[in-house]
Amino acid sequence: MAPINGTFDYDLVVIGGGSGGLACAKEAVGLGAKVAVLDFVTPSPRGTKWGLGGTCVNVGCIPKKLMHQASLLGEGIHDAQAYGWTVNPEEVAIKWSAVTEAVQNHIKSVNWVTRVDLRDKKVEYVNGLGYFKDPHNVVAVMKNGTERVLNAKHIVIAVGGRPRYPDIPGAIEYGITSDDIFNIGLECAGFLKGFGYDATVMVRSIVLRGFDQQMADIVSSAMIEKGINFLFKTIPTSVEKTTDGRYLVKYRSNEGAEGSDVYDTVLFAIGRTALTDDLRLENAGVKVNEENKKIPVNEREETNVDGIYAVGDVIDGRPELTPVAILAGRLLARRVIGNGQDLMDYRDVATTVFTPLEYGCVGMSEEAAVKEFGEENVEVFHAYYKPTEFFVPQKSVRYCYLKSVALREGDQKVLGLHYVGPVAGEVIQGFAAAVKCGLTMKILMNTVGIHPTTAEEFTRLNITKRSGVDPTPASCGLTMKILMNTVGIHPTTAEEFTRLNITKRSGVDPTPASCCS
Amino acid sequence: MAPINGTFDYDLVVIGGGSGGLACAKEAVGLGAKVAVLDFVTPSPRGTKWGLGGTCVNVGCIPKKLMHQASLLGEGIHDAQAYGWTVNPEEVAIKWSAVTEAVQNHIKSVNWVTRVDLRDKKVEYVNGLGYFKDPHNVVAVMKNGTERVLNAKHIVIAVGGRPRYPDIPGAIEYGITSDDIFNIGLECAGFLKGFGYDATVMVRSIVLRGFDQQMADIVSSAMIEKGINFLFKTIPTSVEKTTDGRYLVKYRSNEGAEGSDVYDTVLFAIGRTALTDDLRLENAGVKVNEENKKIPVNEREETNVDGIYAVGDVIDGRPELTPVAILAGRLLARRVIGNGQDLMDYRDVATTVFTPLEYGCVGMSEEAAVKEFGEENVEVFHAYYKPTEFFVPQKSVRYCYLKSVALREGDQKVLGLHYVGPVAGEVIQGFAAAVKCGLTMKILMNTVGIHPTTAEEFTRLNITKRSGVDPTPASCGLTMKILMNTVGIHPTTAEEFTRLNITKRSGVDPTPASCCS
Repeated sequence: MAPINGTFDYDLVVIGGGSGGLACAKEAVGLGAKVAVLDFVTPSPRGTKWGLGGTCVNVGCIPKKLMHQASLLGEGIHDAQAYGWTVNPEEVAIKWSAVTEAVQNHIKSVNWVTRVDLRDKKVEYVNGLGYFKDPHNVVAVMKNGTERVLNAKHIVIAVGGRPRYPDIPGAIEYGITSDDIFNIGLECAGFLKGFGYDATVMVRSIVLRGFDQQMADIVSSAMIEKGINFLFKTIPTSVEKTTDGRYLVKYRSNEGAEGSDVYDTVLFAIGRTALTDDLRLENAGVKVNEENKKIPVNEREETNVDGIYAVGDVIDGRPELTPVAILAGRLLARRVIGNGQDLMDYRDVATTVFTPLEYGCVGMSEEAAVKEFGEENVEVFHAYYKPTEFFVPQKSVRYCYLKSVALREGDQKVLGLHYVGPVAGEVIQGFAAAVKCGLTMKILMNTVGIHPTTAEEFTRLNITKRSGVDPTPASCGLTMKILMNTVGIHPTTAEEFTRLNITKRSGVDPTPASCCS
Repeated sequence: MAPINGTFDYDLVVIGGGSGGLACAKEAVGLGAKVAVLDFVTPSPRGTKWGLGGTCVNVGCIPKKLMHQASLLGEGIHDAQAYGWTVNPEEVAIKWSAVTEAVQNHIKSVNWVTRVDLRDKKVEYVNGLGYFKDPHNVVAVMKNGTERVLNAKHIVIAVGGRPRYPDIPGAIEYGITSDDIFNIGLECAGFLKGFGYDATVMVRSIVLRGFDQQMADIVSSAMIEKGINFLFKTIPTSVEKTTDGRYLVKYRSNEGAEGSDVYDTVLFAIGRTALTDDLRLENAGVKVNEENKKIPVNEREETNVDGIYAVGDVIDGRPELTPVAILAGRLLARRVIGNGQDLMDYRDVATTVFTPLEYGCVGMSEEAAVKEFGEENVEVFHAYYKPTEFFVPQKSVRYCYLKSVALREGDQKVLGLHYVGPVAGEVIQGFAAAVKCGLTMKILMNTVGIHPTTAEEFTRLNITKRSGVDPTPASCGLTMKILMNTVGIHPTTAEEFTRLNITKRSGVDPTPASCCS
């Protein structure tokens, strides 16, 4: 079937119509290649399926961000009252059917635009599940079971991954995953709580593995403060259906203590597995990492087989992020079809976790920096801060925190930046470009802030962890204890705050002695 | 009064307790200096006065940002409905007294914290209006009219500025300024409209002078789309009180056409004047620019008189921005009191205009770059974009736009970045650090985006103005005309969108012929 003289039906066949695959296919067509993209969604155990565009558009970034936005708007309605709006937050509720319909309508419009875009760009779209017949032939199994063979010079595997289920009774029958509700565990618990639902997060060992663990603790602490329950160091052992249609989850702590509780919905967010099983990679001789089913590639995204490449979540040891897949796919097309030379730089990729209080970061965690350079060579600058907008509705600022992990010597090259607070993605993106330009603490401290923003807090960092100085701002964390120990400025009316000592609860007359009539 | 042997009562006296003066004073005390700060607020013609902290805290950045936030929350309540919240936006209104009280309460708490902070740091606070007796003696005129002389080795002028009034009948009697309602004109019109008030902006020549004018046009166009009225190329000629207590404003266009209208409030936002008249600078021999009353300083913030410096809005030819004043004040203290050598870098200062759709920028405008380097040496990359969150409530994306002004040669050094859209300050801050690090288009294009954010649009810029390619994204700006000219994909249900041709208005039966029973 593979042509002898080096001519093929297609220059490029891409298996997988997600972010990476589509970016690669469109770029290749722009460079003059004849390209086909295979995309096929096997329904989840719950029967959820979706259209063209992959995880990000259908069951990842996009629905997640919209749900998060819906949750933030609900919080905004509460805040609005403090700002003088005459809304009654008690009467405000969200209709689950309305929010999911709004989100689904948007996704469908993206599916549609994606399809039209492919057609306009002359990328052939094949709605079939692909497998390898040999290194240059991919078979598309169509919905009706018929097979179609596509013969190609280059093949890109961009099949991505799907959520895993734990191996416990009832998991698949009764549980759902991000395929059914979108999104990673913490983010999901966050927006559900924002909608007014009770949410419990069960954590096997640590939250946000791979992220800076001080920041991860801050994120989970902020969630606990918002009323989200956590069961730490606990694993589920079974899921059973109750007579009233809910689910009994039995679980066990690391120390062996058993427990159980009943929930309306059980969502597994225990990681994802690469979708390589259906690919029959053995027919092409492509190696996989048997542990996680992912495909190892070199710095050129080449697999072990000539002419077969992989991009996106399916590749081993790289960040599972949409923009990473897109840029890698585009650069791959430029090298394979055009005359491009640039390699994808997987270092210092910024990302954001859309928990209620968002967490954005770029570069190294504190642990990673200390491990690589030694504690004596790493300087960590940190600060708590108070977003201006938080004052009026008296929102908690206890977990608004940021830090810069830098080298200690010279101008103190910045290795990593970490930020917990509002609009973390918008805040971190520009700093990611700065880190790519070789940002140092000297430059950061001489960058003028934009006032009043939260992003400007990065330019104000000046307290090192090593110094032991309290990173709390002067006006931050006022407690009654501090207030009562503050000496008043006399004679001002403001000093009365420092004299407060009668509680409403006590029933004591708050009228001062000297002004009784 | 000036000591002969070089000993002084104070190492440093700062005239003006705003952002720049306080930063300078606190830094100097930290370096071991004995410092006093004079601060006194002369009431506005309307009688508005305020506490310690200067323009930013009392009648600038802080109240403006809170008003803007209140306005955004109102917009959020509308948006929330589209996201499934059961709020009825029709019943939602803002209470002006409640929002101003909330804002004032916050300001008062900042005044208080500022005062406690000064005391804790051992900065002497003198609530008196200062004037020069000679180059080393400042007189503080206290509220009761008594005078106190402060003798100092170094004196920093940080008196800032106050709004100007036009020289037309009724301006001072009937008009107000940002001293009374905070803030610059466009931002003020923006949040007032957000609160539901009718707002008209009268513009003498251009909006946002000094900013990139393409971006300025986009900002005003977005405001017009939101229902804010503009009277371009028009100046007021008089303000008169009407019998019902409102104000008749007469105006004249550049072409000489006369007009008038009646308003509840007339706000002048025609610029600010430096507060140097009260200083009796002639007693110390300090020169001022007679045109704008500002004080010229060198790159060390030194006036023409030894030992007298100036920082903040009072200095001539520098950006009037809080963080600029703070950093300049701090660096000045380090040089004058400590052993600091660093000079304030006034270039590439990022800033944000908090109009309803915010505008953030850093570096050069397109005009400035073309003027300095020549059009043939400047490459402008630009794009319209669609914030993910805008889709569900179907907010207008017509004015979501960004551009990068870069050199054309080599790696294309970035000269300026401009962005109109949500949370512009948070988006631009990090890029400001990147520009300080020598950001190039090559690095920017190889920076991985954070998805889905609006900040990531900067990493996706790839269309130059020179190319003439349409910078509108594929899925953007869908019109019925485009939709009806889109060929359907057959057989899908989605293709029905491309067949839409019956309007509700027509009353034509929308049931397709082939499925009539």
